[in-house]
Parts: sequence; structure tokens; C-alpha cells
Amino acid sequence: MQGELSDEKVVVKESEAEIFEFKGYGRRKGRLELSLEEAAFLLETEMLTIKIKEGEEKELNFKDFLNHALGISPMFGLRYIVYHDLKERGYVVQPGGVDFWLYPRGAKPGEKPARYFIRIVSERGFFPLKELDALLISAHNMRKEPIIAVVDEESDTTYYDVKEAKFEKGEGKRREKEEEIEKAIATLLGDRVVLWDADLAEDLYMKNFYGKLTKEKRLLLSLVEAAYLMKEGLLQMEVSEQKSGFGIVQPSKPVNFDQFIEHARSIENDFMDKYMVYDDLKEKEMIVKTGFKFGAHFRVYKAAQQKHSSYLIHVFPEEHVFSMHELSRAIRLAHGVKKRMIFSFKEKVGEESNIRYVDIGRMKL
Amino acid sequence: MQGELSDEKVVVKESEAEIFEFKGYGRRKGRLELSLEEAAFLLETEMLTIKIKEGEEKELNFKDFLNHALGISPMFGLRYIVYHDLKERGYVVQPGGVDFWLYPRGAKPGEKPARYFIRIVSERGFFPLKELDALLISAHNMRKEPIIAVVDEESDTTYYDVKEAKFEKGEGKRREKEEEIEKAIATLLGDRVVLWDADLAEDLYMKNFYGKLTKEKRLLLSLVEAAYLMKEGLLQMEVSEQKSGFGIVQPSKPVNFDQFIEHARSIENDFMDKYMVYDDLKEKEMIVKTGFKFGAHFRVYKAAQQKHSSYLIHVFPEEHVFSMHELSRAIRLAHGVKKRMIFSFKEKVGEESNIRYVDIGRMKL
Repeated sequence: MQGELSDEKVVVKESEAEIFEFKGYGRRKGRLELSLEEAAFLLETEMLTIKIKEGEEKELNFKDFLNHALGISPMFGLRYIVYHDLKERGYVVQPGGVDFWLYPRGAKPGEKPARYFIRIVSERGFFPLKELDALLISAHNMRKEPIIAVVDEESDTTYYDVKEAKFEKGEGKRREKEEEIEKAIATLLGDRVVLWDADLAEDLYMKNFYGKLTKEKRLLLSLVEAAYLMKEGLLQMEVSEQKSGFGIVQPSKPVNFDQFIEHARSIENDFMDKYMVYDDLKEKEMIVKTGFKFGAHFRVYKAAQQKHSSYLIHVFPEEHVFSMHELSRAIRLAHGVKKRMIFSFKEKVGEESNIRYVDIGRMKL
Repeated sequence: MQGELSDEKVVVKESEAEIFEFKGYGRRKGRLELSLEEAAFLLETEMLTIKIKEGEEKELNFKDFLNHALGISPMFGLRYIVYHDLKERGYVVQPGGVDFWLYPRGAKPGEKPARYFIRIVSERGFFPLKELDALLISAHNMRKEPIIAVVDEESDTTYYDVKEAKFEKGEGKRREKEEEIEKAIATLLGDRVVLWDADLAEDLYMKNFYGKLTKEKRLLLSLVEAAYLMKEGLLQMEVSEQKSGFGIVQPSKPVNFDQFIEHARSIENDFMDKYMVYDDLKEKEMIVKTGFKFGAHFRVYKAAQQKHSSYLIHVFPEEHVFSMHELSRAIRLAHGVKKRMIFSFKEKVGEESNIRYVDIGRMKL
């Protein structure tokens, strides 16, 4: 088989075009044109020879062809590694879309639509959270699923699938309505909250999994939990008045929701971001606990009966930029403990703001 | 048992001091003084009643005592959670050192030295890499081992031990001396390097585990690998001269070490930091590959015979500040795949610079 190099494409001899087309290579523009990745792959696997159009009829070897392709695009190295990997795995790939279209094995482009589109990044790269979001918007518009292909230093490729995570209300079922619980008095103690009444403490802990119940039947609540319970009207907060002079029992004064939020923000810069996500998940009837042991803000159970949580959720500011190592680490960890890694952020839409969840996992191709 | 509150300590009645002392509580300063954590614990477990020195002889309840203690130190909540947790686990704990001294179970302070000192952080906290280093210096000076205790939102405590990691030269044994390998010619292709000679490629890959060997017997090297092989005089680098006009075979020109480093730095901001660590590990005869799949810069094998790597190494700038989630995530991931997590950084000591390795792992207390 023969092709002729023409800048950023290789044109196949008409008499031989049909067989390539049949195998899913190239695009028809009158003549059959191969992309540089397609041509490099066919050249490397010795299914094609390539000559230079201009000048003498010299055949290009693989090395010279690579150099030519890299002269046209510095991304070519990465693109070719991913293309080669996908071809070796038996997929049909077409350049286009974000980087590539991916078709099921044995599919013919044109007859069946591509199922995925692929975005290529280097291990050394960075990935803004906003671009994850943009991927999802593209995916929605194109009716495809997005895949991020990360080429590591060893030239191995790891694939991640990205989708919107939805938590439908009622998916997680509480064992009991919270309204039935009596209003509890709790004390704000610096960076956490203690509920002293043993019966109420046990109730909130056993029925709705709030806080940590100590041996002495006190309930230690986190700031987000306490804020949510206050909002729901289930908690009445007080704080001791700090007066000068030690050793004197301080009288308590009540703390309202706004004062409490203000206090929490003074302790934790990103308290509001965390709280808004916590609140949103609780409204969707999830059970939410800290995910610290897994390096995430929250671990989320879909139902009270679950022994293990289903999701790890980490909250980021909308303008966060991931290093690829950060992405890889979070996803690998979640995968290792059989949970889904979900990145959450607050999206501003005009005056409104939406809580968004991006579910990202390793993909076996 | 009775004690009297006196600002930031509780003084025990002389007639009852001996029994507390015997159990490892308090310090003798004429009278036996309990710290606020000790007193709170003894109060909560009903081994002590506390009255206020000044004014009437009113007994303090636990809530009032907590409020008093928090008035003296906003960190008291965290400190008490950790103290309580360690006592419940049966350890002897003394306030002092960085935050606490930790003695083996059943030990008596004064008779035996503490083995560990404890530094307390909240899940919401941050931890500068430099402070990890400072912990190691303190540990060395005090002849103790440092433990970081992180209190999460659920008021659970996770313990991490920190130590200096040493890679002794010769710990990792290469199968063959690299000097016996012939000098190979490699081409710089954008962000990676290809070695074309099949025999040399196989040699470098099979004997010393460099790069990735393709089916076509080409060796793909990362930039750090290529730089190291150049430094060792094992690799001769060339790059194709990019001339205007497409489709013309470009002549090659040689690239020296300095030019190569400059190119690598233009591709990757922190290339030099990574390269210096890679070089240091290679000099210590480790086998070093990318750790991308584990979210780290490198995975390190102590010997060629090892099926699984022993360490994950991530390189940070000296001024890096960890979030506690970042620490937790990296350590948990390493733990899950039975490796040690090591943070590496370049330490400037006057004109010199040292490569340092901090080994940090989860500790079962």
C-alpha cells in the first residue's frame, strides 16, 4: 500500500483506498486522506509506505515521519501514543472531536456513531475543574461520553471516564423522619459542638448517624452537622460567655444560625463551600460523614443499611486546577476502597448557584 | 478524690496525690499539679471532683470545666480529644514536648523516658513541609519519635509516624553494571525520547529497567531517564532540525546535556527538582519508574528481583504546605498498595543542597 505525504495528512492511492476505508482508516474528501496518527500507525506496522510528494520519490522511514509530524504539532507524540494504544486494544479510532472519536471494536465510522470522545493529557499536565465541566457540556451536546487519556512518563496510558453524578432525592432513605426528634441543646466548644443530653444524643446518632457518640453518651458534632441541624430547627446552640477572670463558671448565651455560620467561617476558610454541599446532599437524603481517612471531605452512604459508603466527595472552588497526580491519586484511592470519587463545586449561574458533582473513575478499556 | 482549679492547672489534695502519681498523672512542683487535659479526663471518668479555689466551694461539672479550659486555650478541644483517645487505648500520656509525651502502656513517667512526642492537628489544618522537617530535627535532638495526631470532623483521631527515609547505596542491587552497555543514539521527540536500536533498547530495558519497550523493540524514555543516561555517558542525544517547508526529511543535530536540561525545563516547570531526586535515587542504586498510577512522581524498587515497588516518592518544593486531606490521601493510597509514602524535597544548606526523604505512614496505636 502506498500513500503520499501532504503536510498534515497522507493521501492514499485511489486503487488502494477501499481496503483502508473498510478497516476504518481515513476520511473521504474526494480522495481518501489519512491523519498523521493513522499514517504513522500504518507505517510502523508496515501496512503502508509513504513517499514525499515534492522532490524525488524518496520513501520516508518511521523516524523521519515522526519528526515531520512533530514539526507540524508538538502534541503529536502524545496523540500517537494514545492512538497506538487504542489500536492495539482493537478499537476503531478516528481523529476529530476533542482529540479522537472512539468506536466500539469492529465498528465502521459512518455506519455507527462513536460512543466516546477522547481528551489527551500528559502526566505533567494540569486540568482545570472548569474544563472537566466543559467536557461534560460537550459530551451532552455531542451525545457522547468523555474519556480523559493520561500518558505517563513511561508512555503508558490511563483512561478515566467522566460523568455527571446525580443524587436523586429519595435514593437514600432515612430510617426515620428527623422531624420526630426533640429539639436538642448543644454547646459550641471552639471548633466543634457537644450535645449533652444522653437520650437526644443517642437518638440523633442511632437514627440519623450524626456525629460521634462517646462512651459517656455525649454527641460530638462537626460544624457542618451542627449548622445543618440548626437550619432544620433541631438544635439550639449556646456558647459560654467568656469573661475575664479564670475559675468562674461562665453563663451561657444563645447563638443563632447566622452567628454560628460566621463563627464556623472564622475557623475554616472554605466552610461555606463545604456546608452548601453537605446541605445539598442531606436534602437529597444521603447519609454524609467525614471522608478524612480517605483524604476527602465527605464519605456518602446511599442508605442507612449500607455497611460501606458508596462515594467519596471532595469540594473544590470552581477555579481549582488539578495536577494530573492529584487526579490520579484521588481516583486510585477511591477505586481501591470500592467507592466512586466525586468532585463537587459550586457553580455560579447568574445570580443563582448550583451544586455540581463530577464523577470520575478509572476505565478499563 | 478532690482537686482545686487554679487557672491552667488543677492541684490535687496532698493526701490523695500519691495514687494519681502512681498512675502517671500530674507533675510534682511541691504539690501535685494536673494539666487541664488530665483533670478533664479524671473528671469525666468520675475519678476526680474539682472545686473552684476562689469564691464559694462550688463543684465544677464537666461542661463548665470544658468551658473554662477553652477560655484558656482554644486548642483545648483538640488536645482533649487526643488525650482521651490515648488514655482509652491504655497509654500513659504527659502534657509537654510539642503537645504530649507518649509512654508505653503501664510505664511510669520519670522511670522510663517517653518514646514518642505528639503533634496535634485538626482535619481542617495545614502542615508545611518545613514543619515536617522541623519535627524530625526535634525528634533527633530529643531522641524521640514524632507522631502527628489528626483529629477529624467526626472527632476521631488518626496517627501518623514520621521518620527520615534513608536509601543506602547498595541496598538496591543492579543486575549488571551499566558501564558495560554500549553508547546508544536516541532522538528527542518533543516531550519524550526514543531509542531506535533494538538490541540496545532491549539491553537497557531488560537489564536496568529503563523506559518502555514497544512491540517494535523501540525504547521510549522519559525526560528524567534520558537526562540521567546522558549524564552517565550512555546516551547520545539528537534532535531533528526543524526547517521551514514540510515533507522534507530533516537532518539531525546533536544535543548536549545542558541543552537537553534546558529543553526539559521548558516542558516541565519542576523538572530539575524531579531530576535531582531521580539522580539521587539512581546513585543509591534504586530502580525508579513513574508512580503516576499511584498519584506520585516515582515508584521505587529496592532490587530488580522485586515484583512490586516498595516506595512511592513525590517531590515537593521546600516551601510546600500540605492540607491534611492531601497528606491523608497520599498515605492511605500508599498503605492500600503496601508501599511506604515518601515526600522528597531539596533542602538548601548554605551553598549546598541536599535531597531529603520524609517517610510518613499511618500508625496503629
